[in-house]
Amino acid sequence: MKIAILGGDGFVGWPTCLHLSNAGHEVHIVDNLSRRWIDTELGVQSLTPMDSIQERCRIWKEVTGKSLRFHLLDLAKEYERLKQWFAEHRPDAVIHFAEQRAAPYSMKTDRHKVYTVDNNVGATHHVLAALVETGIDAHLVHLGTMGVYGYSSVGAPIPEGYLNVEIDTPTGKKGQEILYPTRPGSVYHMTKSLDQILFQFYAQNDGLRITDLHQGIVWGTHTDQTRLHPQLVNRFDYDGDYGTVLNRFLIQAAIGYPLTVHGTGGQTRAFIHIQDSVRCIELALKDAPKRGERVRIFNQMTETHRVRDLAEMVARLSGAKVAYLPNPRKEAEENDLIVKNDQFLALGLNPIRLEEGLLSEVVDVAKKFAHRIDRSRVPAVSAWTKELAAQVDRDPERKALRPAS
Amino acid sequence: MKIAILGGDGFVGWPTCLHLSNAGHEVHIVDNLSRRWIDTELGVQSLTPMDSIQERCRIWKEVTGKSLRFHLLDLAKEYERLKQWFAEHRPDAVIHFAEQRAAPYSMKTDRHKVYTVDNNVGATHHVLAALVETGIDAHLVHLGTMGVYGYSSVGAPIPEGYLNVEIDTPTGKKGQEILYPTRPGSVYHMTKSLDQILFQFYAQNDGLRITDLHQGIVWGTHTDQTRLHPQLVNRFDYDGDYGTVLNRFLIQAAIGYPLTVHGTGGQTRAFIHIQDSVRCIELALKDAPKRGERVRIFNQMTETHRVRDLAEMVARLSGAKVAYLPNPRKEAEENDLIVKNDQFLALGLNPIRLEEGLLSEVVDVAKKFAHRIDRSRVPAVSAWTKELAAQVDRDPERKALRPAS
Ligand SMILES: NC(=O)c1ccc[n+]([C@@H]2O[C@H](COP(=O)([O-])OP(=O)(O)OC[C@H]3O[C@@H](n4cnc5c(N)ncnc54)[C@H](O)[C@@H]3O)[C@@H](O)[C@H]2O)c1
Ligand SMILES: NC(=O)c1ccc[n+]([C@@H]2O[C@H](COP(=O)([O-])OP(=O)(O)OC[C@H]3O[C@@H](n4cnc5c(N)ncnc54)[C@H](O)[C@@H]3O)[C@@H](O)[C@H]2O)c1
Repeated sequence: MKIAILGGDGFVGWPTCLHLSNAGHEVHIVDNLSRRWIDTELGVQSLTPMDSIQERCRIWKEVTGKSLRFHLLDLAKEYERLKQWFAEHRPDAVIHFAEQRAAPYSMKTDRHKVYTVDNNVGATHHVLAALVETGIDAHLVHLGTMGVYGYSSVGAPIPEGYLNVEIDTPTGKKGQEILYPTRPGSVYHMTKSLDQILFQFYAQNDGLRITDLHQGIVWGTHTDQTRLHPQLVNRFDYDGDYGTVLNRFLIQAAIGYPLTVHGTGGQTRAFIHIQDSVRCIELALKDAPKRGERVRIFNQMTETHRVRDLAEMVARLSGAKVAYLPNPRKEAEENDLIVKNDQFLALGLNPIRLEEGLLSEVVDVAKKFAHRIDRSRVPAVSAWTKELAAQVDRDPERKALRPAS
Repeated sequence: MKIAILGGDGFVGWPTCLHLSNAGHEVHIVDNLSRRWIDTELGVQSLTPMDSIQERCRIWKEVTGKSLRFHLLDLAKEYERLKQWFAEHRPDAVIHFAEQRAAPYSMKTDRHKVYTVDNNVGATHHVLAALVETGIDAHLVHLGTMGVYGYSSVGAPIPEGYLNVEIDTPTGKKGQEILYPTRPGSVYHMTKSLDQILFQFYAQNDGLRITDLHQGIVWGTHTDQTRLHPQLVNRFDYDGDYGTVLNRFLIQAAIGYPLTVHGTGGQTRAFIHIQDSVRCIELALKDAPKRGERVRIFNQMTETHRVRDLAEMVARLSGAKVAYLPNPRKEAEENDLIVKNDQFLALGLNPIRLEEGLLSEVVDVAKKFAHRIDRSRVPAVSAWTKELAAQVDRDPERKALRPAS
């Protein structure tokens, strides 16, 4: 298959490119490298030393003999070039990772809110409009997030995308299938909720074949392919904006800093290992919906944990302490989360569990690259509202933990 | 009150400005005049001769002694200027009409799809982000559409915005209130579905006070204020893109052309007179939600009709014939539509009925300005998909009806 991987230079995109190239597909990376620019804006860098995309592709060719082609293109700003690109390359499948993906970054300032909405809605809508216009019947696989549902649900298991509801009609109750209602908790998550509506429309009006993967937090660094050469290493974000909760715990542990839990740490989140994420994408890719079918939605996660339990797990492995700080996010302090992932299990997924994989992250990644850590960048600084920002600022414990700058 | 009327140069916006200025409010019109540019693009013009916005404001001052201030600003493209504008003027209320509002225009080509999404999502999101950033606690009243729900529902009465559903949980069924699920049938309608998600988020995260008016098709031309002077006249669109079904019937009748019904004409639509629309907006404006309240949603319509019944009504008044053509839209041939509008009735709305008001539209508007009609612009030309476009093109009856060009 000829596969276009939009956002193929990113954290999940890069190992996906290698995995699919390794499996024999013709892989094209389309990326505007905005994520590298954001590193520059924030003055942060991946913990793992990351080469340019051109250099990464060269190494892959050297190691495996397989080609990866890179195309510099802004999906949100260059609609006409995107359309030309599709018309010229006519991919069999398109995997769409190309969005601004950090909730804290999306809440930093109004400029960041506006950027996130423009970039994410722009990229997704342009891909859809260009597929219709060029008449390319490619399977579009998009990465969404579990977080789109919010985390203050009634405690019901989250089904895979759809909900059957009963509606009162003059002739009695009638059943109807609807998109599972969303309640996004950040501007970033909100853009994924907007994406869903775009997908529903284009599947219905134009028969586009779309799979939306509602993914949990991806953890882990290496996959079978990134291990093949040091310069194929995946990125590892640990800063307060892009570092997910687990990565930040690992880094705090590596530098002997307390693990900072927001609020009570009672927030339950869904997780998946990067190797499983890549496998799931391949499984979903093979299992394409037919023209005219509704959007296929999978929950792409393998386990759930409370944040404080994660902190304790990392503390146990590393000897670190746990510190509780006020929460800069607007969210429920404690929530349950039960997620159905029957579809991927049925397709044969056999997950890597946190309990098994975590030690390797501590030793092979966090400790190995500890000398590269910039400790001033670990704390989360974006607050969800001005009131929360002020509250977080006043907290004495947070002040005490903040490194001198 | 100081009121910012975004899109105040448009068909619903202009009479709203006059109505609220007349009621003693300080009215500021913010508009980029894109609707006038689209007239130029399409080579069409309002049936009623429409002056520049500057001239309209001058006449209003002359007739009533009251000021209307006009500000040229693109809400979707000039975020920083919008923010400055809010910071300087600090309005008590904001009424948001400023979106591309024609479904056929939104489906013309991929360029029009992209424009409609960028413009509408951009305008709405920028208004929300700028209100939060400037800390202005204005009541935001937005114009949405009934069409957001699609027209192939299970025949249940459409409630005002929300639906109570029951969700299975491990401890039994639990009730939950959700946004009434949408199923938009065009890119234009889809943008209103996206707007809803933006409103839900900003009301929840930032406590913005928002009212969303899900409006039916607005008919009629004059209000008490537009009648005061010929140069205050409202616009009347009759072209295949912007002319709503009723306006196009009126024009066809005035030029002795058959009334062209798409498909069986079994589509049921909701309607409201422009005078009632303006009154509803004033009622909603006064009844602002409190900070932290969910988005208040009203169905702003007063009656429903099947398209073929409308055609017959106009035929009866004018002696015109009715012709049935293939439908360029992707939609159900026949649908029922039951809409709740209890909230506006409770606030005292006493509607103008189509049966009563239609004759005046035939005589005072369509016949009066019949000499200005460009008959080549009446047929609808935008098709929802390429297949439908080809089908519509092949139809012999449609060909016969098409004026020689
Ligand atoms: N990492 C996670 O834990 C996680 C969890 C759930 C969902 N996801 C989703 O998976 C996808 C990939 O996540 P990631 O962690 O790899 O993110 P990432 O930021 O590392 O990668 C995204 C890539 O897309 C590119 N990009 C962004 N906007 C673009 C545009 N307009 N044009 C072209 N390229 C553009 C960036 O340069 C970057 O290389 C995202 O959509 C994200 O929302 C990620
Ligand atoms: N007319 C109807 O029958 C009807 C029915 C349901 C809902 N609505 C909604 O009511 C609102 C007003 O409808 P209308 O019929 O008056 O439309 P209109 O096109 O006549 O007016 C919209 C106005 O907004 C302005 N505008 C558009 N984009 C802008 C931007 N980016 N920046 C600044 N100004 C911008 C246009 O120049 C125009 O003056 C729309 O949101 C529409 O969706 C209308």
